[in-house]
Amino acid sequence: MDAVEIVSDLALKARAAARTLSTATGTERKAALYAIAAAIETRSAEILKANAEDIARAKAEDMHPQMQDRLLLTESRVAGMANGARLVADLPDPLGQVLRQSTLPNGLDLKQVSVPFGVIGMVYEARPNVTVDAAVILLMSGNAALLRGSSTAAASNQVLVTVIRDALATTKISPEVIQLVPSEDRATVKALLNARGKVDLVIPRGSAALIRMVVDESTVPTIETGAGVCHVYVDEFADIEKALPILINSKTHRPSVCNAAETLLVHRAIAPTFLPMALKALSDAGVILHADATAQKVAEKFGIASTPATDQNWCTEYGILEMNVGVVDSVDAAADHIAKYGTNHTEAIVTEKKENADRFIALADCAAVMVNTSTRFTDGEQMGFGAEIGISNQKLHARGPMGLEAMTTTTWIVTGDGQIRS
Amino acid sequence: MDAVEIVSDLALKARAAARTLSTATGTERKAALYAIAAAIETRSAEILKANAEDIARAKAEDMHPQMQDRLLLTESRVAGMANGARLVADLPDPLGQVLRQSTLPNGLDLKQVSVPFGVIGMVYEARPNVTVDAAVILLMSGNAALLRGSSTAAASNQVLVTVIRDALATTKISPEVIQLVPSEDRATVKALLNARGKVDLVIPRGSAALIRMVVDESTVPTIETGAGVCHVYVDEFADIEKALPILINSKTHRPSVCNAAETLLVHRAIAPTFLPMALKALSDAGVILHADATAQKVAEKFGIASTPATDQNWCTEYGILEMNVGVVDSVDAAADHIAKYGTNHTEAIVTEKKENADRFIALADCAAVMVNTSTRFTDGEQMGFGAEIGISNQKLHARGPMGLEAMTTTTWIVTGDGQIRS
Repeated sequence: MDAVEIVSDLALKARAAARTLSTATGTERKAALYAIAAAIETRSAEILKANAEDIARAKAEDMHPQMQDRLLLTESRVAGMANGARLVADLPDPLGQVLRQSTLPNGLDLKQVSVPFGVIGMVYEARPNVTVDAAVILLMSGNAALLRGSSTAAASNQVLVTVIRDALATTKISPEVIQLVPSEDRATVKALLNARGKVDLVIPRGSAALIRMVVDESTVPTIETGAGVCHVYVDEFADIEKALPILINSKTHRPSVCNAAETLLVHRAIAPTFLPMALKALSDAGVILHADATAQKVAEKFGIASTPATDQNWCTEYGILEMNVGVVDSVDAAADHIAKYGTNHTEAIVTEKKENADRFIALADCAAVMVNTSTRFTDGEQMGFGAEIGISNQKLHARGPMGLEAMTTTTWIVTGDGQIRS
Repeated sequence: MDAVEIVSDLALKARAAARTLSTATGTERKAALYAIAAAIETRSAEILKANAEDIARAKAEDMHPQMQDRLLLTESRVAGMANGARLVADLPDPLGQVLRQSTLPNGLDLKQVSVPFGVIGMVYEARPNVTVDAAVILLMSGNAALLRGSSTAAASNQVLVTVIRDALATTKISPEVIQLVPSEDRATVKALLNARGKVDLVIPRGSAALIRMVVDESTVPTIETGAGVCHVYVDEFADIEKALPILINSKTHRPSVCNAAETLLVHRAIAPTFLPMALKALSDAGVILHADATAQKVAEKFGIASTPATDQNWCTEYGILEMNVGVVDSVDAAADHIAKYGTNHTEAIVTEKKENADRFIALADCAAVMVNTSTRFTDGEQMGFGAEIGISNQKLHARGPMGLEAMTTTTWIVTGDGQIRS
């Protein structure tokens, strides 16, 4: 069977099996996740052994140590997977939620309820954790999953999926709801992305290049994750004692994540006070700086190294300790810059003036606006979702951190007593 | 300028102007719609004159009379456009709705609010009404609109857009939020569909062929509307006195609309009682029938004309007085048939047994499930939305009739007092 046939076969199996999931109760789905957690713990030696094979192969192929670390499973990480499954199991059931309800003049009862999305494909890189994290989120939200991980984690992912399916076999949910899409053949990714009608949604998780490829090539609906050129705007009316920690936290707390800030914008009126300390603090923290003409002069004056910011700099997601700095004349000017260079992810304003915060919010066009707090809070766990399958920065369907609800769709249930249109 | 440049230019203008809309209050948007309504009434002679040009051209080109009727504007239809604008203006503001709110343990206030989607393209055929209907829905939901209508309605659409823009010029909302995409050049459709990043969403309204083309070719996110192969399943435990009117209404009330039923499925146990009357009533109503082997025998026995149903029949959206009839063994079997041949639109069950209704709902995977009522109720106006831009039968973002809310997205607003991640 070629890649297209393989994926088609898996998708059809998953679709047929999904029926056992859409007719399962919340209690049954929860019990299934607990069974998976227990199975992961019981079979951790098997999981670690398969992972060791992947690691050995990675070493033999001279994989970069940082990448090896992402591939690596330890007893602690395996325990984390099991505990994560239980945490998701304990979340409120996202299905069967009545989102809207009304009784029409003709007596019809109208209800909009949340239902499973259907068959969801995950295309992801490196970390085998995602295999379990994604599977349990998708199961809890009533979805069948086609998991297409990285070929570097092939053995780990194979065992993890086997453990999950064996656990499901002890429940009334069919093991066929979780399918591993073979990763040896690159063509299976493309086949998955083109399985429109058989697969309802594809979610990419990984590098910007992977996300771009999936979103561009997929005929299956996708949710675009990642891409975070985030900004911190320190307003004329900012409380500097909040602004500095917020700035440093947004840039340096975990620079590789999409919600890290890449650009600092400072209002001209507060720049004399704030810019020197901001540049110094960033520099002390090891941040490489690119600055516009105004900020450049301040940097030079205080002996802080920075280079002139180019157009390219302004729209770069550095992912490391590197940042752009600019001075703007107003909230609107900050919003203009963000509209031009941002990726609709997370934008922060530090201000004590409510009107300016409100204006910034009204002009922002992004997944999350932070007012007097760090951009690093755009995070499902931090926001209390309990689970996060990724952070969407598109506008359609889900925006921001995606928890269980994002993996559902809706159905209208209209109940009558024989009413017809006249 | 070629088509790509033309559309790009319009999209950028619309994007820049959208700021005047996203910062307008609900009261200001409402007032703008009332201004548009008044302007339509005041300038109705101008509108009708332009339409007469389109009609003259259509006649000269031998356009089918039914198509001419869709193109035609009358004083009554123009009044309808103006009244429609006021109705939409009076709807609850879909923006700024707090969808979720919580206070995190660290004191952060978390709010998910509804915000404008952005710049939305409409690609539609024939009826000039859509120019106004779409414009007012999109304006009320804070969106800029690129309207690409049919070349057959070019003069009508030009004047309608001019009237709308002139009315906006009397408000603080920029007229540039409503752009007419030239329809003489076919290439402007493709340019609109490929303006990813400049245009946030494209909605097609028209024939199945148009919808298919838009959804397949667009790199801009789309919402798939239309395609309705809807079913009425009469269960073992149906109340026949409800079933017959529901069946006839679902098929014959307005057969050309997507929510008309195309297939009747009858449980084997009730077939002896129900099938003969159903076939007779359909036949008397002028419905051409295709039947499976079991239903065919009943038809023959009672002298009712029908032909054997093929695979092709089962998945056909007839759009006229034509219908398939089949007999099934169970709720699950009905659900299987629907899963195979349906288009996830509207599925109806007639039953007095709650468990069967619940099972049907759990197995259904569609925009709307009707229990003991007609499929014709999948309709924004009927469901009390007050406005409907189309009926989505996809799973992402919006499902079923789309009112103002479907034209919004969400933003998280996180308000703090200097909190940072530790």
